[in-house]
Amino acid sequence: MSNPTAAMLVIGDEILSGRTRDANMYHLAGQLTAIGIDLKEVRVVSDDAPAIVAAVKALSGTYTHVFTSGGIGPTHDDITADCIAAAFGKTIDVRADAAALLSAHYASTGKEFNAARQRMARIPADAILIENPVSVAPGFTLENVHVMAGVPSVFTAMVASVLPNLTGGAPLLSQSLRVVRGEGDIAGPLGEFAARHPALSVGSYPFQDNGVYGANLVVRGQDKAALNAAMAELSEIFPA
Amino acid sequence: MSNPTAAMLVIGDEILSGRTRDANMYHLAGQLTAIGIDLKEVRVVSDDAPAIVAAVKALSGTYTHVFTSGGIGPTHDDITADCIAAAFGKTIDVRADAAALLSAHYASTGKEFNAARQRMARIPADAILIENPVSVAPGFTLENVHVMAGVPSVFTAMVASVLPNLTGGAPLLSQSLRVVRGEGDIAGPLGEFAARHPALSVGSYPFQDNGVYGANLVVRGQDKAALNAAMAELSEIFPA
Repeated sequence: MSNPTAAMLVIGDEILSGRTRDANMYHLAGQLTAIGIDLKEVRVVSDDAPAIVAAVKALSGTYTHVFTSGGIGPTHDDITADCIAAAFGKTIDVRADAAALLSAHYASTGKEFNAARQRMARIPADAILIENPVSVAPGFTLENVHVMAGVPSVFTAMVASVLPNLTGGAPLLSQSLRVVRGEGDIAGPLGEFAARHPALSVGSYPFQDNGVYGANLVVRGQDKAALNAAMAELSEIFPA
Repeated sequence: MSNPTAAMLVIGDEILSGRTRDANMYHLAGQLTAIGIDLKEVRVVSDDAPAIVAAVKALSGTYTHVFTSGGIGPTHDDITADCIAAAFGKTIDVRADAAALLSAHYASTGKEFNAARQRMARIPADAILIENPVSVAPGFTLENVHVMAGVPSVFTAMVASVLPNLTGGAPLLSQSLRVVRGEGDIAGPLGEFAARHPALSVGSYPFQDNGVYGANLVVRGQDKAALNAAMAELSEIFPA
Protein backbone atom coordinates (compact mmCIF):
# COMPACT_ATOMS: atom_id res chain seq x y z
CA MET A 1 0.00 0.00 0.00
CA SER A 2 1.38 3.37 -0.82
CA ASN A 3 2.10 5.95 1.85
CA PRO A 4 0.08 9.09 2.56
CA THR A 5 1.43 12.09 0.65
CA ALA A 6 2.09 15.65 1.71
CA ALA A 7 2.95 19.10 0.45
CA MET A 8 4.31 22.07 2.31
CA LEU A 9 3.40 25.69 1.65
CA VAL A 10 5.84 28.27 2.99
CA ILE A 11 4.30 31.73 3.18
CA GLY A 12 6.77 34.53 3.44
CA ASP A 13 8.43 37.36 1.62
CA GLU A 14 11.49 36.91 3.83
CA ILE A 15 12.44 33.65 2.10
CA LEU A 16 11.80 34.97 -1.41
CA SER A 17 13.81 38.14 -0.80
CA GLY A 18 16.80 36.15 0.40
CA ARG A 19 16.67 37.73 3.83
CA THR A 20 16.10 34.42 5.63
CA ARG A 21 17.35 30.95 4.87
CA ASP A 22 14.63 28.34 5.22
CA ALA A 23 14.76 26.06 8.25
CA ASN A 24 11.17 24.81 8.50
CA MET A 25 11.17 22.91 5.22
CA TYR A 26 14.25 21.01 6.24
CA HIS A 27 12.76 20.18 9.66
CA LEU A 28 9.37 19.06 8.34
CA ALA A 29 10.91 16.96 5.54
CA GLY A 30 12.90 14.92 8.03
CA GLN A 31 9.95 14.48 10.41
CA LEU A 32 7.59 13.31 7.66
CA THR A 33 10.11 10.87 6.21
CA ALA A 34 10.51 9.30 9.66
CA ILE A 35 6.79 8.51 9.98
CA GLY A 36 6.18 7.37 6.43
CA ILE A 37 4.38 10.38 4.98
CA ASP A 38 5.90 11.18 1.58
CA LEU A 39 6.63 14.87 1.09
CA LYS A 40 6.06 15.32 -2.65
CA GLU A 41 6.14 19.06 -3.20
CA VAL A 42 7.01 22.33 -1.51
CA ARG A 43 5.89 25.76 -2.63
CA VAL A 44 7.07 29.10 -1.34
CA VAL A 45 4.80 32.06 -2.05
CA SER A 46 4.80 35.68 -0.94
CA ASP A 47 2.42 37.40 1.50
CA ASP A 48 -0.12 37.81 -1.28
CA ALA A 49 -3.69 36.62 -0.75
CA PRO A 50 -4.52 35.38 -4.27
CA ALA A 51 -1.22 33.46 -4.45
CA ILE A 52 -1.82 31.83 -1.06
CA VAL A 53 -5.43 30.88 -1.81
CA ALA A 54 -4.53 29.40 -5.22
CA ALA A 55 -1.67 27.35 -3.76
CA VAL A 56 -3.79 26.02 -0.87
CA LYS A 57 -6.52 24.92 -3.27
CA ALA A 58 -4.09 23.23 -5.66
CA LEU A 59 -2.12 21.41 -2.97
CA SER A 60 -5.03 20.37 -0.73
CA GLY A 61 -6.76 18.82 -3.73
CA THR A 62 -3.68 16.82 -4.73
CA TYR A 63 -2.09 15.50 -1.53
CA THR A 64 -3.27 13.75 1.65
CA HIS A 65 -1.92 16.56 3.85
CA VAL A 66 -0.76 20.15 3.43
CA PHE A 67 1.42 21.85 6.02
CA THR A 68 1.75 25.62 5.95
CA SER A 69 4.25 27.82 7.77
CA GLY A 70 4.11 31.54 8.34
CA GLY A 71 1.68 34.44 8.47
CA ILE A 72 -0.39 33.71 11.59
CA GLY A 73 0.90 36.44 13.95
CA PRO A 74 -0.80 39.66 15.05
CA THR A 75 0.60 42.11 12.46
CA HIS A 76 -1.00 43.49 9.28
CA ASP A 77 1.08 41.19 7.06
CA ASP A 78 -0.31 38.06 8.75
CA ILE A 79 -3.04 37.01 6.34
CA THR A 80 -2.74 33.23 6.27
CA ALA A 81 -5.81 32.38 8.42
CA ASP A 82 -8.09 34.55 6.28
CA CYS A 83 -6.67 32.97 3.10
CA ILE A 84 -7.24 29.42 4.36
CA ALA A 85 -10.84 30.31 5.30
CA ALA A 86 -11.34 31.79 1.82
CA ALA A 87 -9.84 28.73 0.11
CA PHE A 88 -12.43 26.48 1.80
CA GLY A 89 -15.36 28.92 1.74
CA LYS A 90 -15.47 29.13 5.55
CA THR A 91 -16.29 32.13 7.73
CA ILE A 92 -13.59 33.42 10.08
CA ASP A 93 -13.82 35.41 13.28
CA VAL A 94 -12.31 35.59 16.78
CA ARG A 95 -13.20 32.21 18.23
CA ALA A 96 -13.99 31.62 21.89
CA ASP A 97 -11.65 28.64 22.38
CA ALA A 98 -8.62 30.46 20.95
CA ALA A 99 -9.52 33.74 22.69
CA ALA A 100 -9.76 31.92 26.05
CA LEU A 101 -6.26 30.48 25.66
CA LEU A 102 -4.77 33.84 24.72
CA SER A 103 -6.60 35.98 27.29
CA ALA A 104 -5.52 33.63 30.09
CA HIS A 105 -1.94 33.80 28.83
CA TYR A 106 -1.83 37.60 28.64
CA ALA A 107 -3.58 37.94 32.02
CA SER A 108 -0.84 35.79 33.58
CA THR A 109 1.93 37.84 31.96
CA GLY A 110 0.36 41.23 32.70
CA LYS A 111 0.03 42.16 29.01
CA GLU A 112 -3.06 43.65 27.43
CA PHE A 113 -5.16 41.30 25.24
CA ASN A 114 -5.54 44.10 22.71
CA ALA A 115 -7.04 44.20 19.22
CA ALA A 116 -3.81 43.07 17.55
CA ARG A 117 -3.48 40.07 19.85
CA GLN A 118 -7.15 39.22 19.33
CA ARG A 119 -6.27 38.84 15.65
CA MET A 120 -4.37 35.69 16.63
CA ALA A 121 -7.66 34.21 17.89
CA ARG A 122 -9.23 34.55 14.41
CA ILE A 123 -9.80 30.91 13.44
CA PRO A 124 -11.90 29.63 10.52
CA ALA A 125 -15.18 27.89 11.34
CA ASP A 126 -14.83 24.10 11.79
CA ALA A 127 -11.05 24.24 12.26
CA ILE A 128 -9.39 22.32 15.10
CA LEU A 129 -6.74 24.17 17.12
CA ILE A 130 -3.08 23.10 17.08
CA GLU A 131 -1.39 23.50 20.45
CA ASN A 132 1.49 25.97 20.72
CA PRO A 133 3.49 25.21 23.87
CA VAL A 134 6.04 27.93 23.04
CA SER A 135 3.99 31.11 22.75
CA VAL A 136 0.34 29.97 23.18
CA ALA A 137 -1.19 31.52 20.01
CA PRO A 138 -2.55 28.38 18.32
CA GLY A 139 -2.29 27.02 14.83
CA PHE A 140 -5.19 25.11 13.36
CA THR A 141 -6.16 22.23 11.11
CA LEU A 142 -8.91 22.84 8.56
CA GLU A 143 -9.84 19.83 6.44
CA ASN A 144 -6.46 18.46 5.31
CA VAL A 145 -4.47 21.66 5.86
CA HIS A 146 -2.35 22.15 8.98
CA VAL A 147 -1.60 25.84 9.56
CA MET A 148 1.47 26.64 11.64
CA ALA A 149 3.67 29.57 12.60
CA GLY A 150 6.82 30.60 10.73
CA VAL A 151 9.11 31.22 13.71
CA PRO A 152 11.19 28.03 13.69
CA SER A 153 10.91 27.25 17.42
CA VAL A 154 7.12 27.59 17.26
CA PHE A 155 6.86 25.72 13.95
CA THR A 156 8.83 22.83 15.40
CA ALA A 157 6.60 22.69 18.49
CA MET A 158 3.43 22.74 16.39
CA VAL A 159 4.72 19.96 14.13
CA ALA A 160 5.27 17.91 17.28
CA SER A 161 1.65 18.65 18.30
CA VAL A 162 0.20 17.62 14.93
CA LEU A 163 2.16 14.62 13.69
CA PRO A 164 1.19 12.11 16.42
CA ASN A 165 -2.45 12.52 15.32
CA LEU A 166 -1.75 11.58 11.71
CA THR A 167 -1.69 8.12 10.22
CA GLY A 168 1.74 7.43 8.81
CA GLY A 169 2.91 4.73 6.46
CA ALA A 170 5.96 2.57 6.18
CA PRO A 171 8.91 4.81 7.05
CA LEU A 172 11.28 5.38 4.18
CA LEU A 173 14.61 3.84 5.14
CA SER A 174 17.79 5.03 3.51
CA GLN A 175 21.40 3.91 3.35
CA SER A 176 24.24 5.58 1.57
CA LEU A 177 27.60 4.66 0.11
CA ARG A 178 30.33 7.23 -0.47
CA VAL A 179 32.21 6.52 -3.69
CA VAL A 180 35.32 8.49 -4.55
CA ARG A 181 34.98 8.28 -8.31
CA GLY A 182 33.51 10.77 -10.75
CA GLU A 183 29.80 10.37 -11.48
CA GLY A 184 30.66 9.78 -15.12
CA ASP A 185 32.47 6.57 -14.14
CA ILE A 186 29.75 5.49 -11.74
CA ALA A 187 26.71 6.20 -13.91
CA GLY A 188 26.69 3.11 -16.14
CA PRO A 189 26.83 0.38 -13.47
CA LEU A 190 24.65 2.47 -11.13
CA GLY A 191 21.91 2.78 -13.74
CA GLU A 192 21.95 -0.99 -14.26
CA PHE A 193 21.78 -1.51 -10.48
CA ALA A 194 18.78 0.87 -10.24
CA ALA A 195 17.02 -0.97 -13.07
CA ARG A 196 17.50 -4.29 -11.23
CA HIS A 197 15.82 -2.83 -8.09
CA PRO A 198 12.63 -1.08 -9.22
CA ALA A 199 11.17 -1.14 -5.67
CA LEU A 200 14.07 0.98 -4.39
CA SER A 201 14.86 4.59 -5.16
CA VAL A 202 18.51 5.09 -6.12
CA GLY A 203 20.01 8.57 -6.07
CA SER A 204 23.47 9.90 -6.83
CA TYR A 205 24.53 13.13 -5.13
CA PRO A 206 27.88 14.34 -6.43
CA PHE A 207 30.39 16.19 -4.27
CA GLN A 208 33.72 17.89 -4.65
CA ASP A 209 35.97 17.86 -1.65
CA ASN A 210 39.36 19.58 -1.94
CA GLY A 211 39.51 18.73 -5.62
CA VAL A 212 38.38 15.13 -5.10
CA TYR A 213 35.30 14.20 -7.14
CA GLY A 214 32.87 11.61 -5.84
CA ALA A 215 29.25 10.89 -5.14
CA ASN A 216 27.09 9.78 -2.25
CA LEU A 217 24.89 6.99 -3.55
CA VAL A 218 21.66 6.89 -1.56
CA VAL A 219 19.30 3.93 -1.72
CA ARG A 220 15.83 4.34 -0.20
CA GLY A 221 13.07 1.84 0.37
CA GLN A 222 10.55 0.51 2.87
CA ASP A 223 11.79 -3.10 3.11
CA LYS A 224 14.80 -3.31 5.41
CA ALA A 225 15.99 -6.75 4.24
CA ALA A 226 15.77 -5.78 0.57
CA LEU A 227 17.64 -2.57 1.32
CA ASN A 228 20.42 -4.40 3.17
CA ALA A 229 20.81 -6.91 0.35
CA ALA A 230 20.94 -4.14 -2.24
CA MET A 231 23.58 -2.22 -0.28
CA ALA A 232 25.74 -5.34 -0.09
CA GLU A 233 25.46 -5.66 -3.86
CA LEU A 234 26.28 -1.96 -4.32
CA SER A 235 29.40 -2.29 -2.15
CA GLU A 236 30.62 -5.07 -4.44
CA ILE A 237 30.01 -2.99 -7.56
CA PHE A 238 31.91 -0.03 -6.06
CA PRO A 239 34.51 -1.44 -3.65
CA ALA A 240 36.24 1.05 -1.35
CA MET B 1 7.28 50.22 -14.24
CA SER B 2 7.15 46.96 -12.45
CA ASN B 3 10.14 44.66 -12.23
CA PRO B 4 10.62 41.40 -14.13
CA THR B 5 9.39 38.41 -12.14
CA ALA B 6 10.91 35.02 -11.51
CA ALA B 7 10.21 31.58 -10.13
CA MET B 8 12.62 28.88 -9.05
CA LEU B 9 12.10 25.16 -9.51
CA VAL B 10 14.24 22.92 -7.30
CA ILE B 11 14.36 19.36 -8.58
CA GLY B 12 15.50 16.83 -6.06
CA ASP B 13 14.38 14.04 -3.79
CA GLU B 14 17.22 14.91 -1.43
CA ILE B 15 15.49 18.13 -0.31
CA LEU B 16 12.05 16.51 0.04
CA SER B 17 13.42 13.58 2.04
CA GLY B 18 15.12 15.92 4.50
CA ARG B 19 18.55 14.59 3.62
CA THR B 20 19.86 17.95 2.39
CA ARG B 21 19.10 21.46 3.52
CA ASP B 22 18.53 23.83 0.63
CA ALA B 23 21.27 26.31 -0.16
CA ASN B 24 20.52 27.24 -3.78
CA MET B 25 17.17 28.89 -3.11
CA TYR B 26 18.73 31.14 -0.53
CA HIS B 27 21.59 32.07 -2.87
CA LEU B 28 19.39 32.79 -5.89
CA ALA B 29 16.86 34.80 -3.86
CA GLY B 30 19.57 37.17 -2.70
CA GLN B 31 21.10 37.52 -6.17
CA LEU B 32 17.77 38.27 -7.85
CA THR B 33 16.77 40.82 -5.23
CA ALA B 34 20.04 42.65 -5.81
CA ILE B 35 19.39 43.13 -9.55
CA GLY B 36 15.70 43.96 -9.33
CA ILE B 37 14.13 40.70 -10.49
CA ASP B 38 11.30 39.80 -8.11
CA LEU B 39 11.34 36.16 -7.03
CA LYS B 40 7.64 35.41 -6.60
CA GLU B 41 7.48 31.67 -6.13
CA VAL B 42 9.63 28.61 -5.48
CA ARG B 43 8.59 25.03 -6.02
CA VAL B 44 10.44 21.91 -4.96
CA VAL B 45 9.46 18.70 -6.77
CA SER B 46 10.88 15.17 -6.80
CA ASP B 47 12.81 13.44 -9.57
CA ASP B 48 9.53 12.59 -11.30
CA ALA B 49 9.07 13.50 -14.97
CA PRO B 50 5.34 14.40 -14.97
CA ALA B 51 5.80 16.58 -11.87
CA ILE B 52 8.79 18.40 -13.42
CA VAL B 53 7.09 18.95 -16.79
CA ALA B 54 3.89 20.26 -15.17
CA ALA B 55 5.80 22.66 -12.91
CA VAL B 56 7.94 23.99 -15.79
CA LYS B 57 4.86 24.66 -17.90
CA ALA B 58 2.99 26.38 -15.07
CA LEU B 59 5.89 28.57 -13.97
CA SER B 60 7.25 29.49 -17.41
CA GLY B 61 3.78 30.65 -18.44
CA THR B 62 3.39 32.86 -15.37
CA TYR B 63 6.75 34.55 -14.73
CA THR B 64 9.36 36.39 -16.79
CA HIS B 65 12.08 33.90 -15.85
CA VAL B 66 12.28 30.41 -14.37
CA PHE B 67 15.49 29.11 -12.78
CA THR B 68 15.86 25.38 -12.17
CA SER B 69 18.41 23.57 -10.06
CA GLY B 70 19.28 19.89 -10.09
CA GLY B 71 19.08 16.81 -12.24
CA ILE B 72 21.52 17.56 -15.07
CA GLY B 73 24.35 15.14 -14.22
CA PRO B 74 25.32 11.85 -15.91
CA THR B 75 23.37 9.36 -13.75
CA HIS B 76 20.05 7.61 -14.40
CA ASP B 77 18.18 9.93 -11.99
CA ASP B 78 19.21 13.04 -13.97
CA ILE B 79 16.10 13.67 -16.08
CA THR B 80 15.77 17.45 -16.06
CA ALA B 81 17.01 18.17 -19.61
CA ASP B 82 14.59 15.66 -21.11
CA CYS B 83 11.73 17.12 -19.07
CA ILE B 84 12.48 20.68 -20.18
CA ALA B 85 12.57 19.55 -23.82
CA ALA B 86 9.23 17.77 -23.32
CA ALA B 87 7.67 20.82 -21.67
CA PHE B 88 8.46 22.95 -24.74
CA GLY B 89 7.90 20.26 -27.39
CA LYS B 90 11.58 20.29 -28.44
CA THR B 91 13.75 17.41 -29.56
CA ILE B 92 16.80 16.55 -27.47
CA ASP B 93 20.04 14.78 -28.34
CA VAL B 94 23.78 14.98 -27.77
CA ARG B 95 24.65 18.37 -29.21
CA ALA B 96 27.94 19.16 -30.94
CA ASP B 97 28.72 22.35 -29.00
CA ALA B 98 28.24 20.72 -25.60
CA ALA B 99 30.00 17.50 -26.67
CA ALA B 100 33.01 19.53 -27.87
CA LEU B 101 33.36 21.24 -24.50
CA LEU B 102 33.13 17.98 -22.61
CA SER B 103 35.36 15.87 -24.87
CA ALA B 104 38.11 18.51 -24.68
CA HIS B 105 37.79 18.57 -20.90
CA TYR B 106 37.99 14.80 -20.49
CA ALA B 107 40.84 14.55 -23.01
CA SER B 108 42.81 17.04 -20.91
CA THR B 109 42.13 15.14 -17.68
CA GLY B 110 42.75 11.68 -19.12
CA LYS B 111 39.22 10.46 -18.48
CA GLU B 112 37.07 8.59 -20.95
CA PHE B 113 34.23 10.57 -22.57
CA ASN B 114 31.95 7.57 -22.11
CA ALA B 115 28.22 7.09 -22.68
CA ALA B 116 27.30 8.40 -19.22
CA ARG B 117 29.33 11.57 -19.67
CA GLN B 118 27.86 12.05 -23.15
CA ARG B 119 24.46 12.22 -21.41
CA MET B 120 25.59 15.60 -20.04
CA ALA B 121 25.85 16.86 -23.64
CA ARG B 122 22.16 16.15 -24.25
CA ILE B 123 20.75 19.63 -24.84
CA PRO B 124 17.29 20.50 -26.21
CA ALA B 125 17.12 21.99 -29.70
CA ASP B 126 17.28 25.82 -29.75
CA ALA B 127 18.68 26.05 -26.21
CA ILE B 128 21.66 28.31 -25.46
CA LEU B 129 24.43 26.86 -23.29
CA ILE B 130 25.19 28.25 -19.83
CA GLU B 131 28.87 28.26 -18.99
CA ASN B 132 30.07 26.09 -16.11
CA PRO B 133 33.53 27.24 -15.02
CA VAL B 134 33.60 24.72 -12.16
CA SER B 135 33.11 21.36 -13.84
CA VAL B 136 32.55 22.19 -17.55
CA ALA B 137 29.26 20.30 -18.13
CA PRO B 138 26.99 23.14 -19.24
CA GLY B 139 23.55 24.26 -18.20
CA PHE B 140 21.25 25.79 -20.77
CA THR B 141 18.57 28.41 -21.34
CA LEU B 142 15.49 27.36 -23.33
CA GLU B 143 12.94 30.13 -23.89
CA ASN B 144 12.56 31.72 -20.44
CA VAL B 145 13.86 28.74 -18.44
CA HIS B 146 17.45 28.67 -17.14
CA VAL B 147 18.53 25.12 -16.30
CA MET B 148 21.37 24.76 -13.81
CA ALA B 149 23.11 22.12 -11.71
CA GLY B 150 22.15 21.27 -8.14
CA VAL B 151 25.65 21.07 -6.63
CA PRO B 152 25.84 24.43 -4.83
CA SER B 153 29.30 25.44 -6.09
CA VAL B 154 28.24 24.74 -9.69
CA PHE B 155 24.82 26.33 -9.25
CA THR B 156 26.43 29.50 -7.91
CA ALA B 157 28.86 29.64 -10.85
CA MET B 158 26.06 29.15 -13.37
CA VAL B 159 23.95 31.87 -11.76
CA ALA B 160 26.93 34.18 -12.16
CA SER B 161 27.09 33.19 -15.85
CA VAL B 162 23.39 33.83 -16.49
CA LEU B 163 22.40 36.91 -14.50
CA PRO B 164 24.58 39.50 -16.29
CA ASN B 165 22.65 38.69 -19.51
CA LEU B 166 19.24 39.42 -18.01
CA THR B 167 17.50 42.76 -17.81
CA GLY B 168 16.90 43.65 -14.19
CA GLY B 169 14.66 46.26 -12.68
CA ALA B 170 14.96 48.67 -9.82
CA PRO B 171 16.72 46.78 -7.03
CA LEU B 172 14.56 46.22 -4.00
CA LEU B 173 16.19 48.10 -1.13
CA SER B 174 15.50 47.11 2.43
CA GLN B 175 16.12 48.52 5.86
CA SER B 176 15.26 47.01 9.17
CA LEU B 177 14.58 48.13 12.72
CA ARG B 178 14.91 45.77 15.69
CA VAL B 179 12.20 46.43 18.25
CA VAL B 180 12.31 44.68 21.61
CA ARG B 181 8.59 44.60 22.21
CA GLY B 182 6.08 41.83 21.59
CA GLU B 183 4.45 41.84 18.15
CA GLY B 184 1.09 42.26 19.87
CA ASP B 185 2.20 45.67 21.13
CA ILE B 186 3.76 46.67 17.82
CA ALA B 187 0.99 45.53 15.51
CA GLY B 188 -1.47 48.44 15.82
CA PRO B 189 0.90 51.36 15.07
CA LEU B 190 2.82 49.23 12.54
CA GLY B 191 -0.35 48.49 10.57
CA GLU B 192 -1.17 52.22 10.47
CA PHE B 193 2.39 52.97 9.32
CA ALA B 194 2.09 50.35 6.54
CA ALA B 195 -1.24 51.82 5.43
CA ARG B 196 0.36 55.30 5.18
CA HIS B 197 3.11 53.90 2.89
CA PRO B 198 1.40 51.81 0.21
CA ALA B 199 4.46 51.99 -2.09
CA LEU B 200 6.59 50.23 0.52
CA SER B 201 6.36 46.67 1.73
CA VAL B 202 6.38 46.43 5.53
CA GLY B 203 7.10 43.11 7.22
CA SER B 204 7.35 42.07 10.84
CA TYR B 205 9.54 39.06 11.69
CA PRO B 206 9.20 38.07 15.32
CA PHE B 207 12.06 36.60 17.31
CA GLN B 208 12.68 35.19 20.76
CA ASP B 209 16.12 35.66 22.18
CA ASN B 210 16.82 34.23 25.66
CA GLY B 211 13.22 34.82 26.66
CA VAL B 212 13.12 38.32 25.18
CA TYR B 213 10.33 38.82 22.64
CA GLY B 214 10.74 41.25 19.80
CA ALA B 215 10.47 41.72 16.06
CA ASN B 216 12.62 42.82 13.18
CA LEU B 217 10.59 45.31 11.19
CA VAL B 218 11.70 45.25 7.56
CA VAL B 219 10.71 47.96 5.11
CA ARG B 220 11.36 47.34 1.42
CA GLY B 221 11.02 49.62 -1.56
CA GLN B 222 12.68 50.88 -4.72
CA ASP B 223 12.90 54.59 -3.83
CA LYS B 224 15.84 55.24 -1.52
CA ALA B 225 14.68 58.68 -0.33
CA ALA B 226 11.18 57.44 0.45
CA LEU B 227 12.66 54.47 2.28
CA ASN B 228 14.96 56.67 4.37
CA ALA B 229 12.10 59.00 5.29
CA ALA B 230 9.88 56.08 6.26
CA MET B 231 12.60 54.56 8.44
CA ALA B 232 13.02 57.86 10.27
CA GLU B 233 9.30 57.89 10.94
CA LEU B 234 9.38 54.26 12.10
CA SER B 235 12.21 55.02 14.54
CA GLU B 236 10.04 57.74 16.09
CA ILE B 237 7.07 55.38 16.44
CA PHE B 238 9.25 52.73 18.09
CA PRO B 239 12.10 54.54 19.89
CA ALA B 240 14.96 52.38 21.14
